[in-house]
Amino acid sequence: MTDVRYAEDYKPGEIFELGARTITEQEIVEFATRYDPMPFHIDREAAAKSIYGGLTASGWQSCLIMIGMMHKGFICSQTSLGSPGMEFKWLKPVRPGDRLTGRVEVEEVRVSRSKPGLGFVTNVATLTNQLGEIVYSTRNVAIFRTRAALNSVP
Amino acid sequence: MTDVRYAEDYKPGEIFELGARTITEQEIVEFATRYDPMPFHIDREAAAKSIYGGLTASGWQSCLIMIGMMHKGFICSQTSLGSPGMEFKWLKPVRPGDRLTGRVEVEEVRVSRSKPGLGFVTNVATLTNQLGEIVYSTRNVAIFRTRAALNSVP
Repeated sequence: MTDVRYAEDYKPGEIFELGARTITEQEIVEFATRYDPMPFHIDREAAAKSIYGGLTASGWQSCLIMIGMMHKGFICSQTSLGSPGMEFKWLKPVRPGDRLTGRVEVEEVRVSRSKPGLGFVTNVATLTNQLGEIVYSTRNVAIFRTRAALNSVP
Repeated sequence: MTDVRYAEDYKPGEIFELGARTITEQEIVEFATRYDPMPFHIDREAAAKSIYGGLTASGWQSCLIMIGMMHKGFICSQTSLGSPGMEFKWLKPVRPGDRLTGRVEVEEVRVSRSKPGLGFVTNVATLTNQLGEIVYSTRNVAIFRTRAALNSVP
């Protein structure tokens, strides 16, 4: 995202298509070995015998793929002030070779009453695989500067 | 966690102290450069001018530090079946040199009615900094095999 967007520039109902990317077995195993070493994320044989029937990606890798896509196509780094937290669902396993498509829909935009320099952009972000199944979904609040912030001390 | 623990082996009220670890500026910048490149995570000068007044870690790094600690001291990799999702709060910025202490408290343990081989361990996990401030908190459900699973097809 190269244009400057303030909180008010995000509109309820607005949709951001974030493109797609394929996840490889090597990426899955490397990430999980470092951060989330469950047998069904890192060991092909153990994974085959597990309830998942084969390697699956760490759910945290889906989170980071989503945030990476959001940085490219939704979050304005010049006005973003982060987030107070998050809730999300891991709905389906992500497997080697899956092609994940990202999408964000703006649900609500609200300017802080106590700090008018801040705006809260509630959005629903999803990753969908090549079968059309949503594998990851989050409803979250992204905080951005408002245009009012231009005229106030941050 | 080296002992095998089934869902029933986790007890409501049980506390797991997960130890502490210090996060460095280099780790913060490297992680965020790759996964969450906000100026206040990766650029010391931009961070100093931001509302955070200096570099802060990506909240996603806190998530991964927490899950790493949970792997060592809470999650049994032989019985864990992952999680359906998560909610969490990033309560305070994490800064270079912060020492984060992990802790998990088991809140509820429930065996699935429809799939008695599965148990749901609701827990509250936190990271606390050297000032005693909780910086990250999550209430989540971890799924583990039950002892009943020993006698059933998974």
